[in-house]
Amino acid sequence: MIKIALAQIPVLPGHPDKNTDTIRRYIHQAREEGADLILFPEMAIPGYLLGDTWEQPSFLAECEACGREIIDAAKDIAVLFGNVALDPAKKNRDGRVRKYNALFAAQNGSLVPPANLPYPFFIKTLLPNYREFDDSRYFFSLPELAQEMGKKPADLLSPLTLYLQGKAYTIGALLCEDGWSEDYNLSPLRILENQAPLNFVVNLSSSPYTLGKNEKRHRLFGREAAALHVPIFYVNHVGVQNNGKTVYTFDGSSTVYDRQGKIRAAAPAYQEALLTISPEILAERPVLSSAAPAETESLFQALSYGLRHFMDALSLKRVVIGLSGGIDSAVAAALCVHVLGPENVLLLNLPSRFNSAATKDLAARLAKNLGCRYAVLPIQESVELTIRQIETTPIKNLAVGKSENLAVSAFMAENIQARDRSSRLLAAAAAAFDGVFTCNANKTETTVGYSTLYGDQAGFFAPLADLWKYQIYDLARYLNDCIYQWEVIPPEIIALPPSAELSAKQNVDRGQGDPLHYPYHDYLFRAFVERWQKATPEDILTWYAAGTLEKEIGCAPGLVKQYFLTPADFIADLERWWTLFTGLAVAKRIQAPPVLAVSRRAYGFDHREAQNGPYYTKKYRTLKARLLQKR
Amino acid sequence: MIKIALAQIPVLPGHPDKNTDTIRRYIHQAREEGADLILFPEMAIPGYLLGDTWEQPSFLAECEACGREIIDAAKDIAVLFGNVALDPAKKNRDGRVRKYNALFAAQNGSLVPPANLPYPFFIKTLLPNYREFDDSRYFFSLPELAQEMGKKPADLLSPLTLYLQGKAYTIGALLCEDGWSEDYNLSPLRILENQAPLNFVVNLSSSPYTLGKNEKRHRLFGREAAALHVPIFYVNHVGVQNNGKTVYTFDGSSTVYDRQGKIRAAAPAYQEALLTISPEILAERPVLSSAAPAETESLFQALSYGLRHFMDALSLKRVVIGLSGGIDSAVAAALCVHVLGPENVLLLNLPSRFNSAATKDLAARLAKNLGCRYAVLPIQESVELTIRQIETTPIKNLAVGKSENLAVSAFMAENIQARDRSSRLLAAAAAAFDGVFTCNANKTETTVGYSTLYGDQAGFFAPLADLWKYQIYDLARYLNDCIYQWEVIPPEIIALPPSAELSAKQNVDRGQGDPLHYPYHDYLFRAFVERWQKATPEDILTWYAAGTLEKEIGCAPGLVKQYFLTPADFIADLERWWTLFTGLAVAKRIQAPPVLAVSRRAYGFDHREAQNGPYYTKKYRTLKARLLQKR
Repeated sequence: MIKIALAQIPVLPGHPDKNTDTIRRYIHQAREEGADLILFPEMAIPGYLLGDTWEQPSFLAECEACGREIIDAAKDIAVLFGNVALDPAKKNRDGRVRKYNALFAAQNGSLVPPANLPYPFFIKTLLPNYREFDDSRYFFSLPELAQEMGKKPADLLSPLTLYLQGKAYTIGALLCEDGWSEDYNLSPLRILENQAPLNFVVNLSSSPYTLGKNEKRHRLFGREAAALHVPIFYVNHVGVQNNGKTVYTFDGSSTVYDRQGKIRAAAPAYQEALLTISPEILAERPVLSSAAPAETESLFQALSYGLRHFMDALSLKRVVIGLSGGIDSAVAAALCVHVLGPENVLLLNLPSRFNSAATKDLAARLAKNLGCRYAVLPIQESVELTIRQIETTPIKNLAVGKSENLAVSAFMAENIQARDRSSRLLAAAAAAFDGVFTCNANKTETTVGYSTLYGDQAGFFAPLADLWKYQIYDLARYLNDCIYQWEVIPPEIIALPPSAELSAKQNVDRGQGDPLHYPYHDYLFRAFVERWQKATPEDILTWYAAGTLEKEIGCAPGLVKQYFLTPADFIADLERWWTLFTGLAVAKRIQAPPVLAVSRRAYGFDHREAQNGPYYTKKYRTLKARLLQKR
Repeated sequence: MIKIALAQIPVLPGHPDKNTDTIRRYIHQAREEGADLILFPEMAIPGYLLGDTWEQPSFLAECEACGREIIDAAKDIAVLFGNVALDPAKKNRDGRVRKYNALFAAQNGSLVPPANLPYPFFIKTLLPNYREFDDSRYFFSLPELAQEMGKKPADLLSPLTLYLQGKAYTIGALLCEDGWSEDYNLSPLRILENQAPLNFVVNLSSSPYTLGKNEKRHRLFGREAAALHVPIFYVNHVGVQNNGKTVYTFDGSSTVYDRQGKIRAAAPAYQEALLTISPEILAERPVLSSAAPAETESLFQALSYGLRHFMDALSLKRVVIGLSGGIDSAVAAALCVHVLGPENVLLLNLPSRFNSAATKDLAARLAKNLGCRYAVLPIQESVELTIRQIETTPIKNLAVGKSENLAVSAFMAENIQARDRSSRLLAAAAAAFDGVFTCNANKTETTVGYSTLYGDQAGFFAPLADLWKYQIYDLARYLNDCIYQWEVIPPEIIALPPSAELSAKQNVDRGQGDPLHYPYHDYLFRAFVERWQKATPEDILTWYAAGTLEKEIGCAPGLVKQYFLTPADFIADLERWWTLFTGLAVAKRIQAPPVLAVSRRAYGFDHREAQNGPYYTKKYRTLKARLLQKR
C-alpha cells in the first residue's frame, strides 16, 4: 500500500533559495513518515506572481539550479514539483528564452520524463490569461509547442508512470488550470484518460483564494473524479503573493477526492501542512463536507491571513490607523488589533470642526475597548493655515504684471481636510511610530472614487478595499460576535449613518451622510465590476425599463422605487456614478495602495482599466430618450 | 492606375461613436480625392488599450454596430479597417464570447471575405503579450483557431483579393504584429507570399511610439519588402492611449515601402493625415530618408504631443508646478508652458529653511522668463506645526494607562517637507487654480524610489518619469536651443548639482546634493529595467569582476574606478540601489501617477512588478564573497 504526501508548503514568491529549503525539509519529513511520493505545488521553487522577474536570465538560472537540487534530493521517495523550465535553443514569442510552466517528476535522483514530449519535464497545457493571470506573457503552452512541432496537443500528452513499491502507477499529472478546462476547447484530463486507465490524478496548483472558489473546485473536481472514476490529489500552497496593485492570499486547502468525487482528506485552510494518504484505502476514510465556511467567516480568514503575511513579507510590524468613529476605520482597527496585537497599533482621531461629538466619543471608546495606543490630533489649525496661505498669497501674473488671489471653495476645503489627515499627520506619525498607516477604503467608495487622493485614499495597503459596504457591516458584527465575543466595536458605530464628516452637510447627528444608498449601490457597482458579463448603463437601463433590475443585480426588491421617484432620477443617479466609475475614480485607483483581493474581481491588476472616460452606447442613449420622453 | 489612401486618423480609445464619425469623414475625403481603396488602422473603431472594457457585451455590440455602418459606407471605394470581431457561438479561453482582433475588407457595402476562414473577416495571427500588450487576455489568434479546427495556421491564411478599377489585386492583409514576426515560429507574410504573388501588402497598425522603433520598422519592413519584392503600405494612427499606469503616444508615421524596401511616402509624425498614393508609380516618387530625428528631438515630440493630448483626453487645461529651482521642475515648467501656454501654468516655489537663496532666485528667474503665474508659498511654518503636533501630543497607551511621545527624526522631517509641498499646498492650489499638479520625477529617481510618497512622487501625471537624468539635461538644452531659442532655463539651473534640498546635508551652495552618480547610475539602472535580458546584481558583479561593466551598460569608461575605490564600495552601492529598486521603490511606483512612456520599457503596466523584496542569487553571493576576500 503506497502513501502519497501532499505538501501544503508556504511559498515565498521570488525567493527560490528559501523555497528550496522548505521543499527539502518537507521531503525529509515525508520520508520520515514513510511516504512513497510527495507532491509540491505549481511553481513551488520560484513562486508564481513575480511580474517581469521572469525576464531576468540570472533568476531563471537560479530556479533551474534549485530544481536540480530537488531532483538530487529525490531519493527513497518520488517527488513531483512545479518549477519554470527553459529551452535555451528556442525562443518565446517575445524573443526571450523559451519558458514553460512545468511539472518535474523526480525519483532516484533523476527525472522521470514524459513519453511524448521532447523534454524531461511535463508542460502546462492550459495557460490562464484572465483576472490576475498573465501566463502567456511568460510561458509557452503545450498546444503551442504541439503546433510548432506540427502535431496535435493530444500527441504530446501522456500520463506519468512511476514505480512505487515495485508497482507501476499510471498518473494523470496536471498543473492548476489544466484541471479547470470547462472553457477551453480541450481537456488534458480527458485526453490522458483516453490514453490509459489512470491510477490517480495529481493537480499541482498555485491557486489564489477567491470567495466561493473552493466550492466551485469541489463541484468541478468531484464531477471529474466521478466521471473518470479516478481519485484526484489536489495540492495548493499557502502564503501571500502580489502583482503590485493587488495582493492575493493562497489558502492551500489541498484536497483528496475519491473515485466517486467525494472528499476523503483535506488540509486546513491557510496552514502549512503535510497530508499523508494512501490512495488504495480512500474509501475507508470518512467523507468530509464540501461546504465552505459562511461568507463572512471565509472573508475574515482571508483578510487576517493576508494582512499578517503581507506585513511579514514587507518586514512590517506596526500600523497607525486614522480612527474617525465610522464603520470602515473601526473594522480596520479591530482587524489590525486582532492580527498584529494591540501593542503594534496606534489609533489616531484627527478631528476638524465638522466631526461630531458622537463620532469623536465613539472613536475614543473603540480605542479603549481595543486597548491600544491612542491620541487625538486635531487638524483644524493646519487646515485653516493651508486655506489662509492659499487665499492670501498673491499670485503674480508675470506676463501682465498683475496679481490675483486664489479662492478655496467648500468642496476644496473638504479635500484639504482629508489630505491633512493622511499625508500630513498619519504619514508622519506612522514614520515616528516605526510603522505604516492603513487605507480603510471599502470597495463601494473605491468604485466611484468617493475618497480623496493623498487623503483617505492613501496608505501602505488597503485591506478592506475588496469588500462592499454590506460586507464591512457583516465583518463588524462577526468581529464582535465571533472573534472578540463582546461589543468591542460599539453598536452605535454600526448603527450610525455612514458619513465622511467633511462638511456641515454631512452631519451624522442630523442623520446626514454619504450620497450613496449602499443597499442599492453595492449591487449596482458589483454589476459593473464583478459580473461575469460586465454590465454597463445600457444593461442597467434595459433591466430598469423591464422591471427586472433588482433581480438582475441581486439587491433587495423595492429599493429602486424607494430611492428613485422618476426615470429621470434613476438615470441621473446611474450617470453620476458611471461617469465617476469610468472617470475620476480610475485616476484615483491608479494611485491607490495595493488591494487585498477576496472577490472574483478586485481592483488593480485583476480588473484592468484605462483612463478613457465614460461611454454611453447608442442603444443606451435611445432608451434613455424614450424613458425621459414618456413622462 | 489605382490610388490607395492611408488614413492616419486620430483614434479615441473607448469611444467607437466618435471614431466611426472620423472614419466616415475620411472615407468621404478619400473618395473626393479619387482613391480606390482606403486603409484605416488596427482597432480603428474601438481603440486598442481599453483594459477590461473588452468584457462588456454592450460595448462589443456597439463596436460591431459601428463596424456595420462603415461597411455600409464602403461605396465607390474599398475600405479596410480594424475592429473587434465576435463569434457568439464560440468561447474564449476565459469562457467569455470569442473575440478576434480583426481586419475587415468592405466594398460595395459588403464584406469581402477571406478564402480560408470560417468568417467574413481576417484575423490577427500573431498576438503580442509583452510590454504593455495583453492581446491573449482578450483575443483568440488565428493559430489557435487553426488548432481548434484541426488545421495548420497556413491552411487558414490567404491573401485578400480586391477588384479595383476592374482589375484583381492580390493583397497581403496584415494587422500590426503580423509584420513583426522575427521572434515567432511562423511568418504570416511568408506564408501568404508562398500562396500567390502579391500585388502589395497592407499593414494596419495600432503601434505606440517608442524611441528608436520607427528605425527598427524601416529596417524590418524594408528588408521584407525587398526580400519578397512587394510594396508595403503601413498605416498607423495618431492619438494617446493608456492602460492606467502608463500612457502611450501614437505617432502615426504611416509609411509606404516600395518593392526594393525604399521609403516612397510617409505621413508626418503625430499629425492627422490622409496620404494618397498609386502603388504602380512608386518608383517615380523621390526616395525618403529612413533616418529618424535625433534622440532629444524625438523625445520632445513625444512628450509635448503626449502631454497635450493626455490633458485633452481628461478635459484638463491648467497645471500647477512646484518649482524648486532644480533641473527636473525647470524642464517640466518649460515643457508645460510651451505645450499649454503660459496663461495655463501656475508655478509655485515652496521653500523651507533648507532651500538655498540660489535655487529660490533661479526659480523666480525661470518663472519670469516663462512669463506665467508665480507665487512663493513657504512651508516652514506648517512643517514646524506638524513636527510640534506629532512630538508634543501624548500618545496614551490605553492597555497600561501610560503616556509616551513620538519623536521626529531628521530623515522623517525631510519627508514631512516633501508631503507638505505636494499634498498640502500643490493639491490645494491646483484645485483652486482649476487644474492639476504635475509629478516632475525622472526615471533615475523613480527606479530607486528617491522620492517621497504623497510628496514629490505625487501628481496627476508624470511626463518626465521615463527619462533618465541625462535625458532631462539634454531636454533642458534642447528647449533652450531649439524651442525657445534663448536661455529660458537659466544656465545656472543646468550647471547646479542636483539636490533635493531637504536637509542641511543637501546644500547646493556647498556643491552637496543627491546620493546618485547620474553618469553611472543612469546606465546601471537602465540595465536593470530596459535591457532586453534584464540584468541583476549577478550580471553586474560578473561584468565588474571581468572589467567589462562600463562597456556592457554603456556608461563612459573610467567612471567605475572614479566612483568606487574598492570592490566593497562597489558592492555596497550596488546592493543599496538593487534593494531599493526591488523593495521600497516598488511600493512607491504602485502609488505613482501615470507615466508617459517613451523608452522601450516604462514603469507601470509596461514593466510589471511585484512587491517581493530583493533577491541575490547564489552565484552573486559566491562572487561577492570572493571579491571581498581578495582584499
